[in-house]
Amino acid sequence: MKNITFIGAGNVATILSMELQRNGYNILEVWSKTEKSAKILADKLSCSYCVDLNNLKSPDLFIVAIKDDHIRDIVNIIQNKETPIVHTSGSVGIDVFSNKNNFGVFYPLQTFSKEFSLNFNNLPICIEANNELTQRDLIKIGNSISSNIHLVDSKQREKLHIAAVISCNFTNHMLTISEGLLKDSELEFDLLKPLIKETLEKALSNSPENVQTGPAFRKDLEIVQKHINLLSYDDKLKKLYSLISKHIISSKSDV
Amino acid sequence: MKNITFIGAGNVATILSMELQRNGYNILEVWSKTEKSAKILADKLSCSYCVDLNNLKSPDLFIVAIKDDHIRDIVNIIQNKETPIVHTSGSVGIDVFSNKNNFGVFYPLQTFSKEFSLNFNNLPICIEANNELTQRDLIKIGNSISSNIHLVDSKQREKLHIAAVISCNFTNHMLTISEGLLKDSELEFDLLKPLIKETLEKALSNSPENVQTGPAFRKDLEIVQKHINLLSYDDKLKKLYSLISKHIISSKSDV
Repeated sequence: MKNITFIGAGNVATILSMELQRNGYNILEVWSKTEKSAKILADKLSCSYCVDLNNLKSPDLFIVAIKDDHIRDIVNIIQNKETPIVHTSGSVGIDVFSNKNNFGVFYPLQTFSKEFSLNFNNLPICIEANNELTQRDLIKIGNSISSNIHLVDSKQREKLHIAAVISCNFTNHMLTISEGLLKDSELEFDLLKPLIKETLEKALSNSPENVQTGPAFRKDLEIVQKHINLLSYDDKLKKLYSLISKHIISSKSDV
Repeated sequence: MKNITFIGAGNVATILSMELQRNGYNILEVWSKTEKSAKILADKLSCSYCVDLNNLKSPDLFIVAIKDDHIRDIVNIIQNKETPIVHTSGSVGIDVFSNKNNFGVFYPLQTFSKEFSLNFNNLPICIEANNELTQRDLIKIGNSISSNIHLVDSKQREKLHIAAVISCNFTNHMLTISEGLLKDSELEFDLLKPLIKETLEKALSNSPENVQTGPAFRKDLEIVQKHINLLSYDDKLKKLYSLISKHIISSKSDV
């Protein structure tokens, strides 16, 4: 699987294709819906590009790195049934390839932005394939860029994706809310950073379940209610604070 | 303010008294409700201890580091009206000292556990006082252990405390939920750690508001609904996922 074609030219396609090229793979071609974005990535890789899915060269592997809800349509247009084809999505099942013969998933569990460089060394790559040969090939490619390769089937990946949303997108939203509260009180967000760092360090070096603290966890209902009252000027935030506190209280009861 | 008496012998009292002693302050006495805990801390500090609030020595400063909901009662028992007295709480107002003449707040914004050592260098200490002299003295003490001193009044501190709960206790709860989801799918929590670290690094080096991602933020309602359906086996978690997603969607609309 030396020659790889990328279907897509966005963040994941850009970062991943460059990393694979750096590690000895030949990026044969880049496809994108628009010539402009195809050309930008092809220039970075010094490879050819294409905007017509009926006119693709024959690589050893297709990597489909496009928006989740376009994967099925795009895959259906690609005529080539035999060449192994994978997508890089956390939320799309392997069944999206039902009209192909060799297929799988190559899901790097990380947020990608073209502006940020990324260290692949320990980046988890979740692999799934419909046959052993394809699986072995995908593991080999994974190993060439990271030492953190996992076999994860579609059912597990669905849950993993929810967990990623909750642990990353939702936590970031909690930080955004806090930043806003501080701004309202003319305080700098910097004030919270040492506490946030310490909290995360404890959670990751130990286990978040073992280091939970706070008024809801202590069942200090007086403070929880005081906070809810203080947030009554913002109905949505008040509801959010109340529901998360309740969830913390009830999680503790479950133990 | 050379001689300090600690009212309390818990996590904050232990860590803070030892740090102040290391920086040249004389810990005169430790009070605790039980002789056992008073003695444990007094032994660490090689100072005397006391369990009778009517029998306290006269220090230059009382630091009250006990549970929030006991502060008012304990403070009312202390007869000494003139000696400056502060508490270390994030959620209790300065008005709890209304029967004293010199008072304030000395709130180190961090989680304290006796088992973890703590670097005070850059730890934010939030100070408030009812007069300039006490304020100046508290700033001086703060500066002796940290270079990150802030004047924060009671109204600001209330909001700061809510922000701390949301950005630390709530985020830790999000991680706990994710850990549970992965366990259910026989996946290691380690799998998520690089993504969590990267997310936090981006949020803290930039601004969480600017780096929000995820299906709710992209208004990818199909995935949000898919996740909600996948969580339907756990009604509370389903509600939580749904409400936080809605809050992210509506926050974006507010911009």
